[in-house]
Amino acid sequence: MSNSFGNCFRFTIFGQSHAPAIGVTIEGLPSGFEIDMEKLSAFMARRAPGGRYSTPRKEADMPEFIAGLVNGKTCGAPLTAIIRNNDTRSKDYEYMRTVPRPGHADYTAMVKYGPSRDYAGGGQFSGRLTAPLCIAGGIALQLLEKLGVSISARIEAIGGERDEVKMFELIDRVRAEGDSVGGLISCTAAGLPAGLGEPMFGGMENRIAQAVFGIPAVKGVEFGAGFEAANMRGSQCNDPFIMEKGSVITESNNHGGILGGISSGMPIEFRVAIKPTPSIAQTQRSVDMSCGEDTELNIRGRHDPCIVPRAVPCVEAAAAVAIYDAYLENKMLQV
Amino acid sequence: MSNSFGNCFRFTIFGQSHAPAIGVTIEGLPSGFEIDMEKLSAFMARRAPGGRYSTPRKEADMPEFIAGLVNGKTCGAPLTAIIRNNDTRSKDYEYMRTVPRPGHADYTAMVKYGPSRDYAGGGQFSGRLTAPLCIAGGIALQLLEKLGVSISARIEAIGGERDEVKMFELIDRVRAEGDSVGGLISCTAAGLPAGLGEPMFGGMENRIAQAVFGIPAVKGVEFGAGFEAANMRGSQCNDPFIMEKGSVITESNNHGGILGGISSGMPIEFRVAIKPTPSIAQTQRSVDMSCGEDTELNIRGRHDPCIVPRAVPCVEAAAAVAIYDAYLENKMLQV
Amino acid sequence: MSNSFGNCFRFTIFGQSHAPAIGVTIEGLPSGFEIDMEKLSAFMARRAPGGRYSTPRKEADMPEFIAGLVNGKTCGAPLTAIIRNNDTRSKDYEYMRTVPRPGHADYTAMVKYGPSRDYAGGGQFSGRLTAPLCIAGGIALQLLEKLGVSISARIEAIGGERDEVKMFELIDRVRAEGDSVGGLISCTAAGLPAGLGEPMFGGMENRIAQAVFGIPAVKGVEFGAGFEAANMRGSQCNDPFIMEKGSVITESNNHGGILGGISSGMPIEFRVAIKPTPSIAQTQRSVDMSCGEDTELNIRGRHDPCIVPRAVPCVEAAAAVAIYDAYLENKMLQV
Amino acid sequence: MSNSFGNCFRFTIFGQSHAPAIGVTIEGLPSGFEIDMEKLSAFMARRAPGGRYSTPRKEADMPEFIAGLVNGKTCGAPLTAIIRNNDTRSKDYEYMRTVPRPGHADYTAMVKYGPSRDYAGGGQFSGRLTAPLCIAGGIALQLLEKLGVSISARIEAIGGERDEVKMFELIDRVRAEGDSVGGLISCTAAGLPAGLGEPMFGGMENRIAQAVFGIPAVKGVEFGAGFEAANMRGSQCNDPFIMEKGSVITESNNHGGILGGISSGMPIEFRVAIKPTPSIAQTQRSVDMSCGEDTELNIRGRHDPCIVPRAVPCVEAAAAVAIYDAYLENKMLQV
Repeated sequence: MSNSFGNCFRFTIFGQSHAPAIGVTIEGLPSGFEIDMEKLSAFMARRAPGGRYSTPRKEADMPEFIAGLVNGKTCGAPLTAIIRNNDTRSKDYEYMRTVPRPGHADYTAMVKYGPSRDYAGGGQFSGRLTAPLCIAGGIALQLLEKLGVSISARIEAIGGERDEVKMFELIDRVRAEGDSVGGLISCTAAGLPAGLGEPMFGGMENRIAQAVFGIPAVKGVEFGAGFEAANMRGSQCNDPFIMEKGSVITESNNHGGILGGISSGMPIEFRVAIKPTPSIAQTQRSVDMSCGEDTELNIRGRHDPCIVPRAVPCVEAAAAVAIYDAYLENKMLQV
Repeated sequence: MSNSFGNCFRFTIFGQSHAPAIGVTIEGLPSGFEIDMEKLSAFMARRAPGGRYSTPRKEADMPEFIAGLVNGKTCGAPLTAIIRNNDTRSKDYEYMRTVPRPGHADYTAMVKYGPSRDYAGGGQFSGRLTAPLCIAGGIALQLLEKLGVSISARIEAIGGERDEVKMFELIDRVRAEGDSVGGLISCTAAGLPAGLGEPMFGGMENRIAQAVFGIPAVKGVEFGAGFEAANMRGSQCNDPFIMEKGSVITESNNHGGILGGISSGMPIEFRVAIKPTPSIAQTQRSVDMSCGEDTELNIRGRHDPCIVPRAVPCVEAAAAVAIYDAYLENKMLQV
Repeated sequence: MSNSFGNCFRFTIFGQSHAPAIGVTIEGLPSGFEIDMEKLSAFMARRAPGGRYSTPRKEADMPEFIAGLVNGKTCGAPLTAIIRNNDTRSKDYEYMRTVPRPGHADYTAMVKYGPSRDYAGGGQFSGRLTAPLCIAGGIALQLLEKLGVSISARIEAIGGERDEVKMFELIDRVRAEGDSVGGLISCTAAGLPAGLGEPMFGGMENRIAQAVFGIPAVKGVEFGAGFEAANMRGSQCNDPFIMEKGSVITESNNHGGILGGISSGMPIEFRVAIKPTPSIAQTQRSVDMSCGEDTELNIRGRHDPCIVPRAVPCVEAAAAVAIYDAYLENKMLQV
Repeated sequence: MSNSFGNCFRFTIFGQSHAPAIGVTIEGLPSGFEIDMEKLSAFMARRAPGGRYSTPRKEADMPEFIAGLVNGKTCGAPLTAIIRNNDTRSKDYEYMRTVPRPGHADYTAMVKYGPSRDYAGGGQFSGRLTAPLCIAGGIALQLLEKLGVSISARIEAIGGERDEVKMFELIDRVRAEGDSVGGLISCTAAGLPAGLGEPMFGGMENRIAQAVFGIPAVKGVEFGAGFEAANMRGSQCNDPFIMEKGSVITESNNHGGILGGISSGMPIEFRVAIKPTPSIAQTQRSVDMSCGEDTELNIRGRHDPCIVPRAVPCVEAAAAVAIYDAYLENKMLQV
C-alpha cells in the first residue's frame, strides 16, 4: 500500500497538510528500546520550516507518542506518533480547487481521487508528510547507531552551484525573482556490515530507491559511480578488492557499497536529484478543470524557494528506514 | 522477499545460472487471458545471448509453462514457467570459489550465504535471471497492450557514444582490449491513463525504480528531467497544463509523466544507467578469501563486452510489471 | 505484521489499554465515501462497556478522525481514527507486574517483551483493542451494505445455556460466584456474490479465521456444518445444487457458503467459541516471576463476568473486514 | 495472494491436478541447510495415494528440486521443487464441465474463473495440491526439529468412531455404499519456546488457522479446550501457572499452548474437522450450467472414501509452516 514501507521494520504514514494531524505507526521495533527524544527533536528540527530559506509557516513538529511507548521505552506494541496541524490557512488554497498547479500533484490527485480529494495545502502530497517519515527515520537512525551505522547526507549542489556561499546567494536571487531552484543531495551510510540486502527486488538499491522516491520532488537516484558508470570501462569501474588490517575492502567505491544488491561493507553512497519547488510566485499557465479552458495561475500562500536544505534529513531518514529494514531481514536468516 | 515483486500482479523468480532450471511464478493474472507465444518468444529473443555483441552461450530460453495455462489461456491458477539450464560449464567457475571477481556479487554472496552459496555462473546473481523477469514482463506487456499502453526502451549511449555506429565500434574495441563498457537506456511508456500509482512509497517512480534495480548492473534511474532538474528553476521545470482536443496535457514533460507519484497521462519517461560488465579478460586485483591475501585474478569463460543491448528488453519488462501492478491496484479502488 | 490485517482493505491497529490512545489506520478505502457516523456510533456502542453485563469502566469510545476524512468523506488518503484513553487506573495493575494472571497474556507478554512490556490493563492484549477493530469493521460493514451484503452475529449459547433468559441468569450467578463464563457466537453474512475469496491460503475460511482469532478469547471457529461434518457421510454433507428463480443455489448449507475457499452465493455461516473471561475474583494459583515461586493471586479491578455479548459486534467486524478485503481482491482480477 | 503463505518463511504453491506439474517455491530458508531427503520422502509418502483407504492413482510424488539446492544443501536462493503430473485421466472429467459436483469447488470455480478454468481433476482445488504443501511443511519440520520442536498429528475420530478398528471398518462400509465419511484430526506441537507469535492478527491461532484452512475439506479448527471452552467457567478454564524444575508451566492446557496469540511454552494443541470427501459414487442432484436446469450427477473416476488418513501429514505440514514462520519473525525482533 502506498503509505506503508518495509517488510520487517514496517511503518505507515498518515495525514494531510490540513487534516487534524499527521503521524506514523511503526511495527517491528524491539521491546525496551529507549528513544532519545532530544536527539529525535534535533533531527526533526533540521527539516522543520522557519529557517531563512524556508516557508514562514510555524511548526512545532514535535511528535506526541500516543501508543507503543511506556516511560520513554518501546513496549513491543506498535509505536504511533502524531503531530497536530495547527497553523493552517485553508483559504489560501480555495481558489486552486479547479486550477492545478504546474509541477504539483493537484491534477493527478483530481483524476485519481475526484472532487473529494483533500486539496488544502497539497493534502497528502504535501512536503509536510516528510515529518512522519523523519520520525520513523530518526528512530531507525538511533537503532542503527547502536549497530555502529552512521548515515549523513549533505547538499552537493543547488541550481548547479557547488560553492556553499553561492548556493545561498542563488536561493536569495530566485526568491527575489519569484522563482525556485532544485539541487543535488548526496548521502553516505558508513559502518554497515557486509551482507545486508537481498538479490533482485530486495537489494539495497531497490529498497533505498523505493524509500527515497517517497520524498516529494525527488526525480532521480544513483549509487556509487551512478550515471557516470555508463561512460566507464570495466577496468575503470571495477573496484579492486584488497586486504586492509585483515579485512576485505575495495580500493575505490564505484559500486557505492552495494554489489548484487547486497552491502559490501564499504560505505553506501548515493545521490539524489531534487527538482525545484513547483510553487512559484510567477504567473504560470494552467487549465481550469471546471470549464476545461486554458487559464493563468498566480499562486498565493507560503512557499520555499528551495526545499533542498530541508530535504537533507529526509534523505537520511529514507536511507535509515531502508537500511534498518534490510538489517532485520538479514538477521532473521542468519543462523 | 527478495525474489518477489508486486502487490497485485505478483511474481516470484527462482533459479540460479547453473541450477537445473530458472523460472517464475505469477499470481494476479486474469482468467482466460491468451498469451501470444510468438510475441513472447520474440520479446525473449531480444535479451537472449548469441548475438554479435553477447556471450556465445546458447540459450533456447523459451519457457515451458508447467502450471496455470490450459490450451494457451490462463485458468486463474498461478502461472509457472521454467527454462531448463543446459549448456552450463561449472568448471569454468571452480577456480573462482575463493577469489571474488571485482564488481561482481561474488564477495557479498560469500559473506551473506557462506560456503553453501551457488557460485557457479554467478548463481542467483547471474544476468540469466533476467530471463524469467522477461517472461513476467512480456506477459505484462501483452496485458498492457490490451489497455492501450505501449512500452519501448532504447539505447541512448554506450560508453558515452550516442551515435549508433560509433557505439558498436566501441564495443568491438573494448572487446579487443579485453575490457567492457556500460551505457544508458531510456524508456517510454505511452498510452497510460492518468491516475496510476499511489502517493509516497507506492508511486510510479518508487515502483519502477524498485523493479529496474532488479536488473543487474543498473546503478541509477531518473524520471523526466531527472538529474538535470537539479540545475533548473521552477519556471523552467514546471510543465504548463494546456487543453488539447478537449483533454489536459502538459506542454513539456520534465515531470516524466509522473506527478506526486501518480501518472499524469503524459508518457512516463525514465533513463537507466548500466555499469560496464564486471567480467573482463584483463588481469584484476582481488583477494583470496581462503588465505586472506591479495592476489591477481584472470577471468576465464564467456562474457559480454557490453550487456546494454540485452538489457533493453529487461528495462521494458521491469517497467511493464511495475505499471501493470499499479494499474491493478488503482482499478481496485475505483468505484 | 501482527497488528495489520488485509491485502487490499488493509488496516493497522495501535494502542494499549492505558496508553494515551488507541486507534487504527485504514488503507484501501475508495475516495468520496461518506461514513455514516451515527451508524458507526451505534455499532461501536454495542461493544462499549457499561452495560449490565460488563465492566463499569466508562468509555465514550467515539473515534476522533484525525486523517483521511474531509467533510465526513474519505479523501483517498489513509484514514486514521483514535480514541483517547481517559478513565484508566494503572495502579489497579501494579501488583500484577510479576504475577501473571492465569488464562491471560501476562506471562507470554513477559517472555516476549520483557520488563518493558506495557502490563497496565493488559496493555496491547486488552479487549479494549477491539474498539479500533470495530471502527475498521464498522466502516467495512457500511461499504458492504452498499454492495448488498449484510452481516449479523448473535449469541448462540452462554455456558451451555441456549435460552436467552437462562443465559443472563447464568451470567448473574457466575458474577455472584466471582467467576466468569464463555459462550458461542454464530455469524451470517448474506447477500455476497459468488466468487469471493481465493483458493488455498486466501480462502474465505482462511481470511475470516485469521480476523476472528484477532479477538481475544476466541478459541475455535467452524464454517457451515463445521465440526459436525466430521461425523457426516458425503451423501448427507454435500449440498445439492438446484435452480431457483433462474439462479443456482444449494438446498442445504453445510458448506457454510464457501466451497474451495470461494463464496458460493449462499450465506456465509460460521460459529465462534469464546472462552470465559480469564479475570475472575476467585483466588487463583500462579507464580511470582520475581522469585520463581508458586503463589496465590487475587485479581482486583473491573472485569466482565462474560464478554460474549460485547464480542458479538467484534465478530461482525472481523467478518466484515475479511469479506470486504476479499471483495476488493476479487474485483481487481475480474475483467 | 491466495497461493502464498508466510511473512518470513514464505512459499508459493503452483500447479493444477492435471497441469504438467505442481510445485512450490520457498523463500526465507537459511543458507547451508541440508535437507534430509529420506525423511522428506517418508513424510511425503504418508499423504501419497495408493494406500488401502485411498484412490488407486499412482503418484511417485517425489519432488524434483530445480532451484535453490546445491549438493543437497540450500544455497540462499529460493528453493523450488516440482512434481510432474503423469498418470492423469482428463477424460474422466470431461462430462463434468457443466455440471458442478455438490460439495466441490466446481461451481465456485466456474463463477470465479469462467470457462477458462482448469476443471480437470479439480484443477487447482485438487487435494493433490497438498503435496507441495507437504514439501514446504516437511522442510519446515526438519528446521523445527533442529530447534527441538516436534509436531505430530493423529486421527481422533472418523465418522464419529474413535476406536481405530471401527474407524477402518466404517471406511470399508461407506466405500461399499458408494459414500464417504469425514473425521477429526488432532495435532500437537511440542518443544516450542514461549514467545512465538504476535498479538492480534499474527497470533499462533491466526497463523495456524490460516494455514490449516488451506487444506481442502477442513471446516473447523479449535485450540486447547476449543469449543468446549464455551461451556466452561473461568475457574475451570484458566490454567494455573506452577513452577516445575525451575521453569514456569501450566497445570492444565486448556489454552492449547497459546495465550494472547503467543506460545506459552506448553504444547500447542489444536483439532481440525475434516468433511467427508465430496466425490461419492451415489447419484446426486446438481444443475447443468449450460442450460440452467436441474439434473442428476453420477461421478466416475477414482476417489477416496475418506481422506482423513492422508490429511494427517498435511495438518502437520500446515502447523510446521505457520510455527516456523512465527519463529523467524520472533527471532528478528529479539535483541
